[in-house]
Amino acid sequence: MDHNKRSAVSTVPDAAPIRVGFIGLNWNKGWALKTHRPAISQLSSQFLITALYDEDQEAVVTTIQKLRLVHATAFTSLEAFSSFKNIDMIVVSIRASKQYEVLMSILKHSATNLSLKYLFIEWAFGSNLQQAQEIYDATAQRRLQTIVALQGRKSPYIQRAKELIHENYIGEINSVEIAGNACWFGYERSRKFAPGMFEMGNGLDLVTTTFGHTIDLLQYITESYFSKINALIFNNIPNQTLVDDLGNPMGRTVPKSVPDHLLFHGSLQRGNIPVACSIKGGKPTKKFTKNFVIDIHGTRGDIKLEGDAGFAEMSNLVLYYNGIRANDHPAAGEKLSSEQGKEFMEVYHLRNYDAVHGNIFRLYQSIADFHFNTRKIPNLPSHFIMQGFEFEGFPTLMDGLILRKLIDSVYRSSSLGSTLDVTNTLQFAFM
Amino acid sequence: MDHNKRSAVSTVPDAAPIRVGFIGLNWNKGWALKTHRPAISQLSSQFLITALYDEDQEAVVTTIQKLRLVHATAFTSLEAFSSFKNIDMIVVSIRASKQYEVLMSILKHSATNLSLKYLFIEWAFGSNLQQAQEIYDATAQRRLQTIVALQGRKSPYIQRAKELIHENYIGEINSVEIAGNACWFGYERSRKFAPGMFEMGNGLDLVTTTFGHTIDLLQYITESYFSKINALIFNNIPNQTLVDDLGNPMGRTVPKSVPDHLLFHGSLQRGNIPVACSIKGGKPTKKFTKNFVIDIHGTRGDIKLEGDAGFAEMSNLVLYYNGIRANDHPAAGEKLSSEQGKEFMEVYHLRNYDAVHGNIFRLYQSIADFHFNTRKIPNLPSHFIMQGFEFEGFPTLMDGLILRKLIDSVYRSSSLGSTLDVTNTLQFAFM
Repeated sequence: MDHNKRSAVSTVPDAAPIRVGFIGLNWNKGWALKTHRPAISQLSSQFLITALYDEDQEAVVTTIQKLRLVHATAFTSLEAFSSFKNIDMIVVSIRASKQYEVLMSILKHSATNLSLKYLFIEWAFGSNLQQAQEIYDATAQRRLQTIVALQGRKSPYIQRAKELIHENYIGEINSVEIAGNACWFGYERSRKFAPGMFEMGNGLDLVTTTFGHTIDLLQYITESYFSKINALIFNNIPNQTLVDDLGNPMGRTVPKSVPDHLLFHGSLQRGNIPVACSIKGGKPTKKFTKNFVIDIHGTRGDIKLEGDAGFAEMSNLVLYYNGIRANDHPAAGEKLSSEQGKEFMEVYHLRNYDAVHGNIFRLYQSIADFHFNTRKIPNLPSHFIMQGFEFEGFPTLMDGLILRKLIDSVYRSSSLGSTLDVTNTLQFAFM
Repeated sequence: MDHNKRSAVSTVPDAAPIRVGFIGLNWNKGWALKTHRPAISQLSSQFLITALYDEDQEAVVTTIQKLRLVHATAFTSLEAFSSFKNIDMIVVSIRASKQYEVLMSILKHSATNLSLKYLFIEWAFGSNLQQAQEIYDATAQRRLQTIVALQGRKSPYIQRAKELIHENYIGEINSVEIAGNACWFGYERSRKFAPGMFEMGNGLDLVTTTFGHTIDLLQYITESYFSKINALIFNNIPNQTLVDDLGNPMGRTVPKSVPDHLLFHGSLQRGNIPVACSIKGGKPTKKFTKNFVIDIHGTRGDIKLEGDAGFAEMSNLVLYYNGIRANDHPAAGEKLSSEQGKEFMEVYHLRNYDAVHGNIFRLYQSIADFHFNTRKIPNLPSHFIMQGFEFEGFPTLMDGLILRKLIDSVYRSSSLGSTLDVTNTLQFAFM
């Protein structure tokens, strides 16, 4: 039971760090500054930013200066950036709707760049399944090692839940219920959000992001893809009230075309397990019910994951476990020994865990673990195509593509009014 | 806000009690003995058992003696029982699979019995929709006043939840989530249960009973039928372990053909409200999560109903409310007065409420209220066809028939793999 430990070594002597070329880092604001930058800083023996791209010359120079990226070369040309020999990894941390164009350009212009081994991409890489598939195909042809920021898989709570199930602490899974509140797709919209988040076709909608991350975590925890699914998608709030930074209404509404509610249910391939899932926009509940809940019921115990917002990949959670371990359960007719049949209870909560930073940090850590073989895994392959349901490693574009296919099926199920068999859709698909 | 009060008068002087002919009451055991008998005893000024039918001569005589039904005539012939002039109401409290035959016989043989006004039937009246429809048609032709034991509608918690919503305490409903555990459809079966409960086609399955009662309550509380629905029905536990009265395995398994899990979701006609529902058999959860939960989220507040088992119609519940009343909510731009914007919280729990007896008792009480016009409603009609979503009254066969149609649609949705539009199915249907 050591899947949940931190990387074995936090510095890697006698090895050159992974040289990182970054797209999307700005000294002033943004997700990359908030999460990628501190992760790389904390892993300074493993990662070094050696190149930075921004189409805006002033922005790229200022960012290098302000963030003291003393080893970084500034680029304003994607072509020059992509063919730069002094990088091992490119990180693209820009919003989904812009990823396709940038990634296809990188993949084209880095074709002869033999230094480049890793490509790290934000979820959901592209605005739709077709773009995602093209990006995947292009990276697969190049045999680039991809990493996708489905960082929730690295959350200690998710790892612990997976571990408890993997080690048979709850027996066979009987059923799963999920409810989450993706508040910003509800009645009010903060003026700080870009309108693109609320327009269909940008890969930023409630189904692709909130549900996408959540259901990826469920599949990862339970080690199973879905077999049958049905979905109903709602846009009951076509206009949102704009609010200022203090949450006060600004006296006008703005249109919203993305959904504000997804009802999803289905069965997992493993054991035909029923899964109910309700992801909503709308007013967060304040009392009695958390805004993120995953209940996993088993024949010998239960796991409950709770959080304050429907974004499990970047929320601090609490894990509750109660049950009887497999080995402690007497066989039918067998008498209980004093050691058997004991009920265990665990409340797992890291009070100061900052999930926004922490999960991205742990994702970088897993890249370093792979690159330097920190965990001393014998015969570690030089490339891996997908993480699947392994504890080790990191989600790749293949994992992401499988998830995009599920999301695509969710939209199709809702528009067709059909329950879909996705057994053959959701599986490892070689080129 | 007085919908939740008990009957205004508990004795009715100067009026003859409603004369009851009973089918299914046995001195030794059973639901009728446990619930109908004490209700009638407590309402002795309003109800009097004047006839008892049982095909077994000894049983009917013994029951009359042991229960001291001094005014009751014993019948072993349904024909004689049904044409007995000294009855105003027939109560049929037998299992669903036997109801069709008995009810059709009563309806035939009571054709010229002008005394008979009321027919009180257990849910789910008949093994399937076709039988239910025939029973309904026969009673409607006779203009008998029917009462169906969807007694959960009379639960004080259900009435209170409905009242809070009706009086705009939570604003517009945003979404609903339901999870319930119908434990006896799970891994273990107590030997005390009749095998028929676990065979399809008897009207006793998890969908018809557990889901049926629950979803009826949700529709009643929210005052809306469904528009679109989808369902996935599972029988993951085709064999149950037989256990003795202490819950110890008896060393053998018994087959089960009824479902052990229903995933249901849909939208209500009112406001296109998304509803997620998961009703499972299987091991009840012991901690962290109750075995019955209805979460109703609104724009101004939330209601949570919780219970210890997935049978809301016969469980003691707890109701939690938190929100801002409609009149206390400032309009956009309006400043809060000291009286406005106050958040209310309510935990409603009757510690000693015995829901098994209490809800049936309250159902009888509502029949008496109607018959004697206890509540002094002006121009009270002499007959009412359905309760619909009224606080007053009691569910009738029309309410039951609408529910049976929903249940039928649930089975069809699952077997067809389709999301169904039930808007036109679920509505008042005149003959």
